[in-house]
Amino acid sequence: MDKKIYLNELYDYYKGLLTDKQREYFESYYFEDLSLGEIAENNNVSRNAVHNQLKIVEEKLEEYEKILKLDEKYKKIDKLLSSNSEKEAILDILSD
Amino acid sequence: MDKKIYLNELYDYYKGLLTDKQREYFESYYFEDLSLGEIAENNNVSRNAVHNQLKIVEEKLEEYEKILKLDEKYKKIDKLLSSNSEKEAILDILSD
Repeated sequence: MDKKIYLNELYDYYKGLLTDKQREYFESYYFEDLSLGEIAENNNVSRNAVHNQLKIVEEKLEEYEKILKLDEKYKKIDKLLSSNSEKEAILDILSD
Repeated sequence: MDKKIYLNELYDYYKGLLTDKQREYFESYYFEDLSLGEIAENNNVSRNAVHNQLKIVEEKLEEYEKILKLDEKYKKIDKLLSSNSEKEAILDILSD
């Protein structure tokens, strides 16, 4: 899977465990498609500081997935469930 | 629900996010039923240090549940699923 899509999935599960600043950088970079330079300017920090924070976020998201495996579990359940009325309800609960 | 049982449930989900020392204190206290004094002696620290660590663990577990809601989700799914062959498989995945 494309790394960017994967990180976006992990972000959905674990964003609550990140700091406000980390969420802001992540969303600016991945959702709003701003450049490192633009994010740096908006936050009055160096381009390198933004780069380092995004790297830390990436590592944290992958560490949380390694520990909690929410993305993996979601996909297993999605695959397991035959198409039925419960499926949508269960996946809704897990995505909430 | 009994607070101790609830903390044990949360521990099952989030133990991977605790430190080795926090896991050791938690398991000594809740699983092996050791006293604060006994855990303190085994670890060469004060009784108060053990008490504080256990308090921190309790707060962390409740904070993780507030953010990730795994226990709540598990219970919702358990309630939602009619008794069928998929139910056991899904709950197995979530408990893994």
